[in-house]
Amino acid sequence: MIHDFIYDIPVKVYFGRDQLHHLGGELKKYGTRVLMTYGGGSIKRSGLYDRVVKELREAGLEWFELPGIEPNPRVASVREGARLCKEHGIDVLLAIGGGSTIDATKWIAAAACTDRDAWDFFDPAILAPVEKALPVLDILTLSATGSEMDCGGVISNPDTKDKYGRMDPLLLPKVSFLDPSNTFSVSAYQTACGGADMLSHIIEVYFNMDQDLYMLDTFMEGLMKTIIKYTPVAIREPDNYEARANLMWASSWAINGFIDGGKRQAWSCHPMEHELSAIYDITHGLGLAILTPRWMTYCLDETTVSKYVQFGVNVLGIDPDQAPMDIARQAIDRFSTVLFDTFGLSRTLPEVGIDDTHFAVMARKAVAGGVLPGFKPLRQEDVEAIYRMCMA
Amino acid sequence: MIHDFIYDIPVKVYFGRDQLHHLGGELKKYGTRVLMTYGGGSIKRSGLYDRVVKELREAGLEWFELPGIEPNPRVASVREGARLCKEHGIDVLLAIGGGSTIDATKWIAAAACTDRDAWDFFDPAILAPVEKALPVLDILTLSATGSEMDCGGVISNPDTKDKYGRMDPLLLPKVSFLDPSNTFSVSAYQTACGGADMLSHIIEVYFNMDQDLYMLDTFMEGLMKTIIKYTPVAIREPDNYEARANLMWASSWAINGFIDGGKRQAWSCHPMEHELSAIYDITHGLGLAILTPRWMTYCLDETTVSKYVQFGVNVLGIDPDQAPMDIARQAIDRFSTVLFDTFGLSRTLPEVGIDDTHFAVMARKAVAGGVLPGFKPLRQEDVEAIYRMCMA
Repeated sequence: MIHDFIYDIPVKVYFGRDQLHHLGGELKKYGTRVLMTYGGGSIKRSGLYDRVVKELREAGLEWFELPGIEPNPRVASVREGARLCKEHGIDVLLAIGGGSTIDATKWIAAAACTDRDAWDFFDPAILAPVEKALPVLDILTLSATGSEMDCGGVISNPDTKDKYGRMDPLLLPKVSFLDPSNTFSVSAYQTACGGADMLSHIIEVYFNMDQDLYMLDTFMEGLMKTIIKYTPVAIREPDNYEARANLMWASSWAINGFIDGGKRQAWSCHPMEHELSAIYDITHGLGLAILTPRWMTYCLDETTVSKYVQFGVNVLGIDPDQAPMDIARQAIDRFSTVLFDTFGLSRTLPEVGIDDTHFAVMARKAVAGGVLPGFKPLRQEDVEAIYRMCMA
Repeated sequence: MIHDFIYDIPVKVYFGRDQLHHLGGELKKYGTRVLMTYGGGSIKRSGLYDRVVKELREAGLEWFELPGIEPNPRVASVREGARLCKEHGIDVLLAIGGGSTIDATKWIAAAACTDRDAWDFFDPAILAPVEKALPVLDILTLSATGSEMDCGGVISNPDTKDKYGRMDPLLLPKVSFLDPSNTFSVSAYQTACGGADMLSHIIEVYFNMDQDLYMLDTFMEGLMKTIIKYTPVAIREPDNYEARANLMWASSWAINGFIDGGKRQAWSCHPMEHELSAIYDITHGLGLAILTPRWMTYCLDETTVSKYVQFGVNVLGIDPDQAPMDIARQAIDRFSTVLFDTFGLSRTLPEVGIDDTHFAVMARKAVAGGVLPGFKPLRQEDVEAIYRMCMA
């Protein structure tokens, strides 16, 4: 059965090299006092910071800054951003960075409009409603999370070792500036992690036995082929515009909601990975890369094999004239080769310094005391088994 | 070179069988006085009219009606709609129908906000600016033109034998209701014409030697495969929900602008077809089906063959291990088979009662006194030659 759905993604995207002259005009639609948020100093080294400041100045905008937003952004940054918004009467937020900066900025936008503590939005015992949020615009500098075109954000709390993602329509960016050349400086390692993250966003939706629109399956297959084709090009030639452009636009469409088409959503690897990176602070895309092929192997059986065949034939070009189980196993092998050989990512958890100390705790948290209702429902012992498969 | 572009499609879409209960709430966001527009009586026979009236009544809305909007809608309908809007102080328009009804309603929305005559928007000597437009919502009943998710409309003027399309961002529908079951009653012939129209929307963008995002090419290929796969299913089984759903969502994405990706736009078959249907009033999709394979044959040479190969291999499944020209010719043949045998559309102009009387005039109009800057630039004599190729 094909499900009903609502499509509603009113983000305006300026895509390309020569679009930043629209920034001032777009910001001014929402006010005159801007909080600019960013991470480390890379936007200063690349010259992007100076170009943005020039636009803000020419537009006559007043701005304040919150630098230092970390990868796997922490609730402390959200609190600090909200404090700055209140102190300076901020009208509009401008996030410059990748998913971490944009995620944090979305929740700053919400936290700025309430007297509650920012963690109240995430604490499962509270889950404070988002009643209002400041408008967010962004300039993307890393193709991976799709935060530039969705309404979610993931925030970590090192005190409680929790990491939660949450979505709210009020957090959707108003305008995103996607200039592929802003990702030329992304390292080979981060490019590979970004590719793995994007692939995972699609695989979490694609590997689903709920019926789908064929039209959306073909789109997902095209996105996966795009990422598999261009990630290695961008790793080898960091300033290849064609590769960066394809990856950037694919990253947005991998997770903006279009591909869901009303299917019962059932993500598996993301919740398992969130527990990993909540404790170990490893790069999200790397954690996903290590987990995904093991999860595929764990979930393969007669009831699920048809999806692996579709993936293997349509995305990886495997000869369809073979037994389904053979095609499925080849698909997992070939996908592992893509991630670990072509993208060059680490293959096991020990390679990245993670042992089995916390597997039981992580598994219990991942299933939230019950069942992870994914492609195949996973209990705590299943998740722990998948973590163990990542040891070698 | 990959071009810059702006992506901005803030149409909200309610997709599926059970969405009409959102209608009243969505209309009320824009006002209380509604003009409902529709074509022939099919929405009364299908029961859709009654369901809409029930929603309007329950929402406490006051409504007026403009029935009788014709296929290839005429400027007289636009004038009449604008008059009704002014007379009754209409706040919001609700189009129920296919592309013709929605197109006409968009221009009613613009004409209602000016004292000019409606044809002033199209008369090439005037091209009156669109300064304001009433909000338009729609309930789609035919998958073909994509008008439910774009900001354009084509209007005919029988007095001058002109037919012009024009786009303006102010005409973008606010909300579109896409219920595939509303297309169950579409005849086999109209279903085939719709499939041909959608394919043409994609082909006009896909057949372009300007560099493209690979990611968008794969999406276009997926859309074309979807339409080729499901149009015959919907012809054979008019109430096959899966087929109607895939065709409906594909029709919107074939022309909402996403696939353009900033490429230099260069449509060929649509301008040639508009001249045909301006004089003969044949169904737009049928005209496109007859013209497109001939246009493909006419434009095939060493400089363009690579695009035909990509189309033949990725969309039609032709064996790639052959000489490019052979693949290209097979692609045209196989595509003709799809349109004329599988979809069952008429193959030649004489079959639909059109002779060569007006070819010269039509060709001159199609190139607007110069060159049609398409996939391959076409002069008047080229267009005339393509029309002649449609004789047998």
